[in-house]
Amino acid sequence: MLPPSLSQRPVLAFLTDFGSTDGYAGIMKGVVLTITSDVHLVDLSHEVPPQQVAAGAWVLSTCYHYFPPGTIFVCVVDPGVGSARRPIALHAGNWFFVGPDNGLFSYVLADQPVHEAVVLANSAYHLPQVSTTFHGRDVFSPVAAHLASGISLSAFGPRVEASSLQRLDTGLPIHENGQITAHIVHIDHFGNLITNIPFSMVPDLFSSSLVRLTFPAQNVVVTERRRFFATSSPEAEAIRRPFLYSNSSGYIAVAIQNGNAAQALGVEYGDTLYCQIK
Amino acid sequence: MLPPSLSQRPVLAFLTDFGSTDGYAGIMKGVVLTITSDVHLVDLSHEVPPQQVAAGAWVLSTCYHYFPPGTIFVCVVDPGVGSARRPIALHAGNWFFVGPDNGLFSYVLADQPVHEAVVLANSAYHLPQVSTTFHGRDVFSPVAAHLASGISLSAFGPRVEASSLQRLDTGLPIHENGQITAHIVHIDHFGNLITNIPFSMVPDLFSSSLVRLTFPAQNVVVTERRRFFATSSPEAEAIRRPFLYSNSSGYIAVAIQNGNAAQALGVEYGDTLYCQIK
Amino acid sequence: MLPPSLSQRPVLAFLTDFGSTDGYAGIMKGVVLTITSDVHLVDLSHEVPPQQVAAGAWVLSTCYHYFPPGTIFVCVVDPGVGSARRPIALHAGNWFFVGPDNGLFSYVLADQPVHEAVVLANSAYHLPQVSTTFHGRDVFSPVAAHLASGISLSAFGPRVEASSLQRLDTGLPIHENGQITAHIVHIDHFGNLITNIPFSMVPDLFSSSLVRLTFPAQNVVVTERRRFFATSSPEAEAIRRPFLYSNSSGYIAVAIQNGNAAQALGVEYGDTLYCQIK
Repeated sequence: MLPPSLSQRPVLAFLTDFGSTDGYAGIMKGVVLTITSDVHLVDLSHEVPPQQVAAGAWVLSTCYHYFPPGTIFVCVVDPGVGSARRPIALHAGNWFFVGPDNGLFSYVLADQPVHEAVVLANSAYHLPQVSTTFHGRDVFSPVAAHLASGISLSAFGPRVEASSLQRLDTGLPIHENGQITAHIVHIDHFGNLITNIPFSMVPDLFSSSLVRLTFPAQNVVVTERRRFFATSSPEAEAIRRPFLYSNSSGYIAVAIQNGNAAQALGVEYGDTLYCQIK
Repeated sequence: MLPPSLSQRPVLAFLTDFGSTDGYAGIMKGVVLTITSDVHLVDLSHEVPPQQVAAGAWVLSTCYHYFPPGTIFVCVVDPGVGSARRPIALHAGNWFFVGPDNGLFSYVLADQPVHEAVVLANSAYHLPQVSTTFHGRDVFSPVAAHLASGISLSAFGPRVEASSLQRLDTGLPIHENGQITAHIVHIDHFGNLITNIPFSMVPDLFSSSLVRLTFPAQNVVVTERRRFFATSSPEAEAIRRPFLYSNSSGYIAVAIQNGNAAQALGVEYGDTLYCQIK
Repeated sequence: MLPPSLSQRPVLAFLTDFGSTDGYAGIMKGVVLTITSDVHLVDLSHEVPPQQVAAGAWVLSTCYHYFPPGTIFVCVVDPGVGSARRPIALHAGNWFFVGPDNGLFSYVLADQPVHEAVVLANSAYHLPQVSTTFHGRDVFSPVAAHLASGISLSAFGPRVEASSLQRLDTGLPIHENGQITAHIVHIDHFGNLITNIPFSMVPDLFSSSLVRLTFPAQNVVVTERRRFFATSSPEAEAIRRPFLYSNSSGYIAVAIQNGNAAQALGVEYGDTLYCQIK
């Protein structure tokens, strides 16, 4: 793969827990544009729940492979900013990733070959003054901008082994005695409940005679399956019923048509569920 | 008009109900940038209330004519995604529109000549794998990107008659016996209440001796008229009083100075109102 | 400094209280792109609390100096829109600012030399129809776009003295009898409480033997100091304790690790605090 500087116009994509009220995300773009002007700046999300590294890692996992080769992801969910956690940059698969070494890149590391990983020790590529609480502005954005302008990863600091990088548990859910024990890894804007069960683990979802997905804490059982949200059923009750589907990222999810399944069922991020298929 | 590829840099503007937490809007931009890099990507809103096609249609109607000729609007408020509803692209007025045929383009269709409309049947311009729940990513964004890069509408699928496209009721409110019966079509970020009464229907708003706007469900009557929000009145009571004005899109609206009229008056989206002018 | 049109690609940065639901910010970008295509469009924030000019002024003050020379800031927190308040444009320091003359540029005026200030009286650079309630669209955005395309400030209207521009009180807090009386000027997305005490006023924050920051209304005293958010303390109680730090903009602030200090302590925007250092 060519370095991003040789592709048409490098793309920098931002994922943070900064919210949209304070200008924090805007400042990062100002820093980038001070260093290089010939870039596309794209927001993935600035609404990762504060300090929730695992939640940010999940959102990143569903997004990055839809971006052009060479895209540089600036990812800042960083409760350890200023402490001993390492600032890093990776070249993994066809993309680059810049951010804290705290597990935020766990799915990327699990799914993509790591060509190179470095610790951002070279302060020549940071802002002249580095704060202890905003490395998104002072370290990650300037490094990403220099990377976009053609500086190679090795300039930013010493190489580290990919095996030394922090990783959260991104393994498949446990399948035992005909039952999958899984949990909710994401609740989206619509209240759809995304599980960590890949469709590839239950390829007979739509053809099997019975599927039961149970939320034990809520005492809720979901058995209906749909391929899309709308139904032609005339019954109002059918419309309000929660159903299983294979979501657009390839995971089993639960929704309610034109409704908010999370609110209706009282299910929260991280909640446990069981799935049986017969 | 020249196709957008021949204007300076094509603009793609996005309107969805995707919210800002999940990266869904960012993914669409990633898909676009994988196909064409020489574009401007602009967000109109990703905060259309979930599945509220009419609300999205209204926001689009207030925005599109401020964009350059050739702008491509990617609009996704799409509760019927994956079902029989048609994915379409339009060339209407000086602009292009890509999204579901569910009424989202009703105001555009009512106000602009339709030069061409096609159903997006040609999968060569979709992503290789099309999900049943995220056509914004898999169909609408790639088609919009190809349109921006110079592909003509006719390549995306067969032409359809504009008369066959889904339309919501966008007609004028009823004017009978000296009273206009209207409703609230939008409540904005400030809590301003936008009615579907165009100023052109009540050109004597500011010159007539009496105007009464009544919200029957709330038993609220508004009679004060202002040309802008600030008043020079020294009375605190006057400052807190709701007033009528002609809003920046040319519709009669109700506001409270430095306040939230929707919350203060308890008025909601869709609520009925009566307007008398003497 | 070169006019922005001669730098690589002019940057337009937007700061408003428009929120993200209505398309108001998107419309402003449409207006800009109709006039000039060769620009970067960046959002600082559209979530300034409605009509809170002082809050917008603060956010702007923390952001603008991270942007490239020549950046044009379009700032619209404008409760007096349409009334007698003047629409203005400034060249201050290395940047340009366009918006209402209502105090929104107070910190810029306090911190930067003003090279030129004009009142936007020349309607040739406005939209053909100027509303009374949306000058962000009809006046400020077209002026900013023309400025980005190389028109000089003097073309937009008559020059005004910088001394005549509206200014809020941006002075240092009062330091008397060993106590600083200050207030909260910003509460960020994380609930961190930003005071108006610059670190330069208390350079011995980390070396002095005792620091007491008191919120009298809440009867809360904060004495712990940290250089960053994470602590290595094993005690859960220590982790939940609020602490002082010098924030990334150089002001004393109060946070709770992985928590929301504003919610936990019941402190609000504008609240008074006392700071003693011994």
